[in-house]
Amino acid sequence: MSIITLTTDYGLKDHFVGALKGKILSEYPEAQIIDISHDIDPFNTVEASYIISAAYASFPKGTVHLIGVDMELNKENLHIVMQWNDSYFIAADNGILSMLSQKIVPQKIVAINIHDRLPSDASGLDVFVTVACHIARGGLLNVIGREINSVKEVTEMKAVITTDTIKGHVIYIDHFGNVVTNITKKQFLEVAKGRPYEIQMKTKNIKTILPNYSAIAISDKYPIKNYEGEKLAIFNEAGYLEIAIFRSNPSKIGSASSLLGLNYRDAVTIEFKN
Amino acid sequence: MSIITLTTDYGLKDHFVGALKGKILSEYPEAQIIDISHDIDPFNTVEASYIISAAYASFPKGTVHLIGVDMELNKENLHIVMQWNDSYFIAADNGILSMLSQKIVPQKIVAINIHDRLPSDASGLDVFVTVACHIARGGLLNVIGREINSVKEVTEMKAVITTDTIKGHVIYIDHFGNVVTNITKKQFLEVAKGRPYEIQMKTKNIKTILPNYSAIAISDKYPIKNYEGEKLAIFNEAGYLEIAIFRSNPSKIGSASSLLGLNYRDAVTIEFKN
Amino acid sequence: MSIITLTTDYGLKDHFVGALKGKILSEYPEAQIIDISHDIDPFNTVEASYIISAAYASFPKGTVHLIGVDMELNKENLHIVMQWNDSYFIAADNGILSMLSQKIVPQKIVAINIHDRLPSDASGLDVFVTVACHIARGGLLNVIGREINSVKEVTEMKAVITTDTIKGHVIYIDHFGNVVTNITKKQFLEVAKGRPYEIQMKTKNIKTILPNYSAIAISDKYPIKNYEGEKLAIFNEAGYLEIAIFRSNPSKIGSASSLLGLNYRDAVTIEFKN
Repeated sequence: MSIITLTTDYGLKDHFVGALKGKILSEYPEAQIIDISHDIDPFNTVEASYIISAAYASFPKGTVHLIGVDMELNKENLHIVMQWNDSYFIAADNGILSMLSQKIVPQKIVAINIHDRLPSDASGLDVFVTVACHIARGGLLNVIGREINSVKEVTEMKAVITTDTIKGHVIYIDHFGNVVTNITKKQFLEVAKGRPYEIQMKTKNIKTILPNYSAIAISDKYPIKNYEGEKLAIFNEAGYLEIAIFRSNPSKIGSASSLLGLNYRDAVTIEFKN
Repeated sequence: MSIITLTTDYGLKDHFVGALKGKILSEYPEAQIIDISHDIDPFNTVEASYIISAAYASFPKGTVHLIGVDMELNKENLHIVMQWNDSYFIAADNGILSMLSQKIVPQKIVAINIHDRLPSDASGLDVFVTVACHIARGGLLNVIGREINSVKEVTEMKAVITTDTIKGHVIYIDHFGNVVTNITKKQFLEVAKGRPYEIQMKTKNIKTILPNYSAIAISDKYPIKNYEGEKLAIFNEAGYLEIAIFRSNPSKIGSASSLLGLNYRDAVTIEFKN
Repeated sequence: MSIITLTTDYGLKDHFVGALKGKILSEYPEAQIIDISHDIDPFNTVEASYIISAAYASFPKGTVHLIGVDMELNKENLHIVMQWNDSYFIAADNGILSMLSQKIVPQKIVAINIHDRLPSDASGLDVFVTVACHIARGGLLNVIGREINSVKEVTEMKAVITTDTIKGHVIYIDHFGNVVTNITKKQFLEVAKGRPYEIQMKTKNIKTILPNYSAIAISDKYPIKNYEGEKLAIFNEAGYLEIAIFRSNPSKIGSASSLLGLNYRDAVTIEFKN
């Protein structure tokens, strides 16, 4: 028995999320269901992609991740399941899974083909529920789909690498107003090779990536409070370069996004010195 | 053992929802608790009514639905349990359950009468918790209430039907800004008898109800993206007529509510042609 | 096996809460996890303190409360576990637990000392997860920490008592806009000794604390609806003096906070007459 996680743009006010859980429990009463997020910006596949790529590693092997964003079946987007890094991802093939498949090669991908086995009024969500329960129970992918070779790529998600620079951009702004870029720690280490560097943003630069937020309080002479509001850069738990303001509260002192003027899709570049 | 669902106007910031779950688990440690919504507009019984009527059908038979909206016991509103369509609904008799009882006749209704069996400082919520755990464990309704014949009607919820028209209005605006009316698919089929029709709203009309959102993309010639922002009508999963904008994001391209100027309680009429 | 509750300022949009649950379930697959709140104002330890002190009493004995607010380990704030009133609280020693320890003496407090037993890239949250799972499984506090004598006090939280007055202030404004003060029922009863009193706020006074919200409808002559919008005072379920507006909807008729002009930290005083 595996965990089923849910990532959607349904919001928490409507009945959609409750009904989704009811459908899962109707089909599979022992299901263990965990919410990842239901507040993805509507139809925003880049946000969904970041959230799931940041969350999956915290779950046990075999976990089934159901992603309900831009998921109505249509002539452009197949319904697929990707087995990747010992986890399962159920989504429309709209680019959401390309961020994962960039990092390591998927173990298996299938195009779901059970649509005509369900009642004629079954929705795309009903299909996902049936597939999620099947896999969580230990069912095989070949039973619910035919194998395909790749997922749809979204080049927008990739940072561009040269010998001396990594050119990325903002892909997500979190609850604290911290700014997440598409530059990964892996890319950084490969290009840096120990050289000094500068992170260049709209109007400000940062010259050091810290191991964690609290490392900003470099001196023991001053209380932690003195460092509130200072900008910093770290690689976050999901492995992406993040520009943050120490202890930011977006509605009070402001956030990295508001204080540094960084918005979704704005450029962030790392330049390495020789 | 049955699922207990929760629908309240408590919001998610305060301790109320967590404390409610703690009370249920204190009384019934094996309870399986599912949130439907905690973001009902405060004291809005019409919203609560729509949400629960849209959600219940996705849950297994025997599920217990606890509705904590406008629920303090007072001289006007009894605490009741309605057994309906093989599910149980615990609520104040303030009209919330009348939308359900319009569709089919309840199997049993009881006025809860255990208030004086609980500690003197027990709240209305404590009463609901005790009743929910009792029913979820398989307990009989007669043990916790005396039978009554009907629930309080709220005529506001009903669409008005003549030979050639169904006059309804907006009862809910969802997370995507889609507009839900109180016109049901059942009413439509009964009155339509295959005739052509027109859905009349403030400034715009629609002449076709689609089977699903993606059906808007009628031609294979154009990519799906070309249809973003078009208005459409469907019967939603809850069986109600819904006016939607294809792939709407309320904060970007706008929604059915904002683009068509439709607000809570605005008229939506279907006129049938002879 | 005990319940693990979560109280954080992570918000519900990001992956943080889902990932936290994934980590708990990876370590302890049978864990029963209940959300209390993830919408604590960022880094606001007073809010976190109120929410947890209002929620804990609804949970069974032995419940483990994980509090992820302002929790990065640093030179000022140790990571601690407090066993109190037969419940366990895991938090940074930043004052969050002082509101509880004011009421009754803790059974045991330990400073967590397992940090160097975890992988070098373990975050503060990983430490909390390990400790929570250890305690929920029935593990001893001495295994994961060394005993200390007290938690950090935050005097800001305490109401000031004289023979004839209790001087408190607003510590929380809830989802309904109701205003919660730091004046407890226990303090009131000790000072009042049956005397008449007046609750003094910015511009208005209240002379009676009601047993519950509905008690505002004193006369049977009028429908409940007539009392909507009236101000009232009660001791809420958490034991704190609360100033409320009967059936307030902050976005419509207004709330205690908006109508009475009461904001976070504003003074509320009870004066007793001789």
